[in-house]
Amino acid sequence: MEIPAKQNHQKRVVIVGAGFAGLSLAKKLSSQYFQVVLLDRNNYHQFQPLLYQVAMAGLEPSSISFPLRKIFQHKKHVVIRIAEVLQIKPETREVETSIGNIGYDYLVLASGATTNYFGMKNLEQHAFSMKSVSEALLLRNTLLQNYEKAVNTSDENQKSALLNIVVVGGGPTGVELAGAIAELRDNILPKDYPELNFNLMKIYLMEAAPRLLNGMGEASGKKVENYLSNLGVTVKCSTSVKDYNGTDVLLNNNTVIKSNCLIWAAGVKGNAPAGLPDSKTINNRLTVDEYSKLEGYNDIFVVGDLAAMTDRHTQKFFPQVAPVAMQQAALLAKNLHAMQRNAPLKPFKYFDKGTMATVGRNLAVAEIGGLKLKGIVAWMVWMFVHLMSIIGVKNKIFVLINWVWQYFTYDQSLRLIIHPTNKKERAPKVHTKSVIAA
Amino acid sequence: MEIPAKQNHQKRVVIVGAGFAGLSLAKKLSSQYFQVVLLDRNNYHQFQPLLYQVAMAGLEPSSISFPLRKIFQHKKHVVIRIAEVLQIKPETREVETSIGNIGYDYLVLASGATTNYFGMKNLEQHAFSMKSVSEALLLRNTLLQNYEKAVNTSDENQKSALLNIVVVGGGPTGVELAGAIAELRDNILPKDYPELNFNLMKIYLMEAAPRLLNGMGEASGKKVENYLSNLGVTVKCSTSVKDYNGTDVLLNNNTVIKSNCLIWAAGVKGNAPAGLPDSKTINNRLTVDEYSKLEGYNDIFVVGDLAAMTDRHTQKFFPQVAPVAMQQAALLAKNLHAMQRNAPLKPFKYFDKGTMATVGRNLAVAEIGGLKLKGIVAWMVWMFVHLMSIIGVKNKIFVLINWVWQYFTYDQSLRLIIHPTNKKERAPKVHTKSVIAA
Repeated sequence: MEIPAKQNHQKRVVIVGAGFAGLSLAKKLSSQYFQVVLLDRNNYHQFQPLLYQVAMAGLEPSSISFPLRKIFQHKKHVVIRIAEVLQIKPETREVETSIGNIGYDYLVLASGATTNYFGMKNLEQHAFSMKSVSEALLLRNTLLQNYEKAVNTSDENQKSALLNIVVVGGGPTGVELAGAIAELRDNILPKDYPELNFNLMKIYLMEAAPRLLNGMGEASGKKVENYLSNLGVTVKCSTSVKDYNGTDVLLNNNTVIKSNCLIWAAGVKGNAPAGLPDSKTINNRLTVDEYSKLEGYNDIFVVGDLAAMTDRHTQKFFPQVAPVAMQQAALLAKNLHAMQRNAPLKPFKYFDKGTMATVGRNLAVAEIGGLKLKGIVAWMVWMFVHLMSIIGVKNKIFVLINWVWQYFTYDQSLRLIIHPTNKKERAPKVHTKSVIAA
Repeated sequence: MEIPAKQNHQKRVVIVGAGFAGLSLAKKLSSQYFQVVLLDRNNYHQFQPLLYQVAMAGLEPSSISFPLRKIFQHKKHVVIRIAEVLQIKPETREVETSIGNIGYDYLVLASGATTNYFGMKNLEQHAFSMKSVSEALLLRNTLLQNYEKAVNTSDENQKSALLNIVVVGGGPTGVELAGAIAELRDNILPKDYPELNFNLMKIYLMEAAPRLLNGMGEASGKKVENYLSNLGVTVKCSTSVKDYNGTDVLLNNNTVIKSNCLIWAAGVKGNAPAGLPDSKTINNRLTVDEYSKLEGYNDIFVVGDLAAMTDRHTQKFFPQVAPVAMQQAALLAKNLHAMQRNAPLKPFKYFDKGTMATVGRNLAVAEIGGLKLKGIVAWMVWMFVHLMSIIGVKNKIFVLINWVWQYFTYDQSLRLIIHPTNKKERAPKVHTKSVIAA
């Protein structure tokens, strides 16, 4: 790896991952003390809360993705490298990556979470997940292809398997997806496919717990269940998926549902790099103290979804949500600066801004402080908060136009199945390994 | 293939290809006489004149692609199928496709043109082409990846091969691409990659003929050559490429240029389906009379880039441009209707609206009737005509915002390398063949 030399007074902070946590941290570290090396497998930051709208053809990937190099155009002390991290070598203070090794003074792991299939190989093979823009696009393409196949078959069993959609996981992602699919079915697909009878299309939302939205109050969960039922989604709580072969969904009560599209939003696990064998805790997350410091190391920190940090008040881990990630990153930036000045460090305190989930037009729930909102008010708060969180003025404009457009026309015009070409990437490889992981 | 039955009074017109010609025709055929089956390998129409802006990260694919099903939402007599045409069987009046056979009363071939490498296998393997949205995205991804590799190598030869770009073909596509690349180099890339010295990046435009823009007047060609030279593009006329191995570009004067990115815009050939062995003429186009009727058949017609129709005034073929395609389609629609009423048919007359090419901000040439425009006036005409030709109000708005944004900020924010996921498409196949070709 070719990295510009750091200046004499600088220490090098290597950050793995440019999600909410890694990006926030990189923005806040001062060139006065640090050279920052930001590593990510993609050349962009992705705004995960709206991935489901990319999957449902409501937004373009570019509206919720932002090129890292543009974000740091005016910060010469931030060096960006597109690379896959292979393992951490704490003994030599190095990170081994797909484009070579890099030494660090401080290492910050912010590589987030990935889909957890809890060891169910069939589900891992056949289910769709939605943790990245690429996965969201695959889901969008497959949905549209399934309808193209459905118009071309007269076999009713085959047809309903192609139409039906099963969403597993009743958290915000599952709820938002199920609502968006129901709106597609009601407002858009029948116009596009007059040959198909969309009464045949069933949408299921499965949740293993007795109710939806476990992270929110019981009233909100109940409200969302009502919204979804009214939209024609079959909500099944206390129900889990045991097996799936790409067509037959086997439930824990041994009934079978036919569907060629099962979307798995039922769990995540930490995306921990290799080389730190003793620090893993539940679901592959890394145990850290209140300063985000990794157990057993003085120069390695973990922030965001990968960090398992205990809330001293509840004795539970902080939830894996964007506000925790960004607040941990902000505090770590302060503490890293404090260390350089030998100033005292501060422990993490979470300021919970609230939780929200949207189900469809005019329908959402929000819990902000003591305030519980529902319906159109919650929906507008949801849109405002998300719009403001998107990076870039032009992206904000494009997302807003798309939303307004869809609101008034009941239409999304992004129903494109765009395939990559078959021509392989052919530029010669630099060093011995590919810069961009496939 | 499952196709709804046509009504008794209807004849079935099968149209192969939803480009300018096929789409125009399908829009104009009346349900009074016809059932229309529109076949395309993609589920969208692509606006080819702006592909180069997709490749240069200036526009999103969705801004210049439009879902076919949306275009025909209110026309029940137009049946859309996403399929690859395998061969024509005139003896049984059938089209064999990847999703089954379909019978026709009239067949209209509008499958356009594809890149012509004139038998040079190495170029076909290593060069980039730009005839589809997918190819434009591959080019965009590769360009950005090459810069990511360039920041990570200290070998100067390797670095300049990664930076240099060779465009082959001095027609409108080559000219517009070279200009867009020069603007990227001057305004955007140095901000994104402060580690790279963009004085090392050379842009070449090669044209085998003695001058650029052969389809336009000599003054326009000369003007564009000046524009490009001022933008720092090395224009080499009377120069052709003999060979290319992915790094070394061998020219006809036996000099070698180092570049990992050669874009081939030097020729097209007709994309003729199999099964019509005797009708091919120069460059795989199909010879038709003035009524677009294929030589030797009474129920097969060819329109657009695939048709080789002789202009009776010049004794040359009409050019392969969008206005010819759309006018041929409009006339064929009239003639097909006339046939049903036993009315006389009209021969094709081309109304030449003019030719244009843009080089960069404020720089373009246009020849409209006797009028020859250049500079900012031609550039504004170019933008207006292209903007008006894009399908859909929202697409027009998005393209306009992108252009205005780029004009004032000197910036494009779409520099994203989005890879497809590795997970294969897993829904079961309908019939025995895949509906969507890979």
